[in-house]
Amino acid sequence: MYYVGVDVGGTNLVAGLMNEDCEILDKASHPVDHSQTPEQLCGEIVRLAKQVCQSGGVTEKEVRAVGIGLPGQVNNKTGIVVRTPNMPFQNTPVRQLFQRQWDMPVFLGNDADCAAIGEYRSGSAKGCSPAVTVTLGTGIGAGMVVDGKLFTGFAGSGMEVGHMIIHPNGHLCGCGNRGCWEQYGSASALIQMTLREMECSRDSLLWQLCGGDRSKVQGRTVFQAARQGDETAHRVLYSYRSGVAIGLINLVNILQPEVICMGGGVSNADDDLLLDPVRELVRQGSFDKTMPTRLVRASLGNDAGVVGAAMLCDSI
Amino acid sequence: MYYVGVDVGGTNLVAGLMNEDCEILDKASHPVDHSQTPEQLCGEIVRLAKQVCQSGGVTEKEVRAVGIGLPGQVNNKTGIVVRTPNMPFQNTPVRQLFQRQWDMPVFLGNDADCAAIGEYRSGSAKGCSPAVTVTLGTGIGAGMVVDGKLFTGFAGSGMEVGHMIIHPNGHLCGCGNRGCWEQYGSASALIQMTLREMECSRDSLLWQLCGGDRSKVQGRTVFQAARQGDETAHRVLYSYRSGVAIGLINLVNILQPEVICMGGGVSNADDDLLLDPVRELVRQGSFDKTMPTRLVRASLGNDAGVVGAAMLCDSI
Repeated sequence: MYYVGVDVGGTNLVAGLMNEDCEILDKASHPVDHSQTPEQLCGEIVRLAKQVCQSGGVTEKEVRAVGIGLPGQVNNKTGIVVRTPNMPFQNTPVRQLFQRQWDMPVFLGNDADCAAIGEYRSGSAKGCSPAVTVTLGTGIGAGMVVDGKLFTGFAGSGMEVGHMIIHPNGHLCGCGNRGCWEQYGSASALIQMTLREMECSRDSLLWQLCGGDRSKVQGRTVFQAARQGDETAHRVLYSYRSGVAIGLINLVNILQPEVICMGGGVSNADDDLLLDPVRELVRQGSFDKTMPTRLVRASLGNDAGVVGAAMLCDSI
Repeated sequence: MYYVGVDVGGTNLVAGLMNEDCEILDKASHPVDHSQTPEQLCGEIVRLAKQVCQSGGVTEKEVRAVGIGLPGQVNNKTGIVVRTPNMPFQNTPVRQLFQRQWDMPVFLGNDADCAAIGEYRSGSAKGCSPAVTVTLGTGIGAGMVVDGKLFTGFAGSGMEVGHMIIHPNGHLCGCGNRGCWEQYGSASALIQMTLREMECSRDSLLWQLCGGDRSKVQGRTVFQAARQGDETAHRVLYSYRSGVAIGLINLVNILQPEVICMGGGVSNADDDLLLDPVRELVRQGSFDKTMPTRLVRASLGNDAGVVGAAMLCDSI
């Protein structure tokens, strides 16, 4: 049998055809047209899903299911996408709209959950349990697979780990709380921390690297400056690593995963600047000092979403 | 079939005989003799387990299994009690020692896990998933049952929720970290908070209630004083409730349980002084504002340990 996964991102739709060994046999992508109606966008998803089957030489009967991964809040039980940022879906019966055009088993998943399934099926978390995948991006997304099945919580809103409070009365978060982890550990938080430190250090290399333009500061900028010995950058990274580590310590002490996969562009930083010191902080903070949880880089990159969406049918 | 559960506490051994409906048919207890060898203590557990079968009129063949719940670190896979406070067990092969005297299937569990199983099987969390039970005591213990099975993490040290960090650089915890939840939400933390506030409020009613003797301050003292309108006591409770709530918010946002059962003596305080305001704080802090997680009082009290131990065999 074959599986089709569609990763619906803010910029692109990406569809992939996968075999039972989680190998992507064919892939196709298409930019998201934000002016489309929900029906039109679903039509685009169907078209792309059919396209990869055709180009992969696979008939409809050989396809076990189609999985669709989206950012935001998704309810697989009802087949409804509750809300998703920057897209026309809102309380949209995506499964129904899809099946009107193609009669297939359709599974829906949150993008963070799909990434977790992807890493569990064929990435850095392969075969581990519990397997947690944490993505440091605009916010912090996470998913957990336990004994091969996605952990979703009671009503599908489990693993909102970016909104655990680690600094009561800390920075205000978009969710309305203060001191959420994603205000200290996300890629956006790293940029904010960098900008704050730059204001106090006018001679930092960071100013040169962004050409004097604050808006050009990215997550990678601070790692570049640190690599060149900039003290301000090292100071930023010191507190960013603490922020990342506290959330991870809490995940280790609550969930004791066999592995935590770190995804998102920030996680690609050189080991000595991020992952190694964070590992040491997490080891120190773990209640079980033997710390069996391995902290590794996610390995599928952008493919995790497609692989995870494709395998939703066997993971829910 | 029948089940036998033995709750090994710091003060007493309690054994219970249970039927398939989780009704305790017979119970026996015996003080723990701290001068005993591991072999002797295991002998005592066997004797008590046999005793409840006999007095309940149940033959050995009708017993499905014996479960033993203990505080501390327990490994059911190996049958070894790694360590347990104030007891002669340390890396003790408790299953083996038990079976030498009585050839029965023996299951071992941590006391917090047993409480969670107990509440799930016949208490406030009956049939819920995920069902989390949190006990506010000397520390904070917790267990989680998902689809009827105990969640243990990779190596049995999951759900050490008392050691999630909620105040970086906060109070030093026995585990070596700073700012662990149990420094703000346990019954001991409540007593510490009360003592600190008393120092600044020499005219507080708290001083009368403890007869001027700090060592007589208990968890319930502050609720008594608050009930009588003492301002200092209300101030203590205000910050204690925040401490309790932050940890619960994090559990809701990470695990989204269907129910959280609150156990431990402190949880028996009047609703208006503890549980109701905590519920409101948790609702406000939940990422999913529909907040489907119910926050309730645990209902089995001291029996939870016996029931949970007895049902370990069907929950692991």
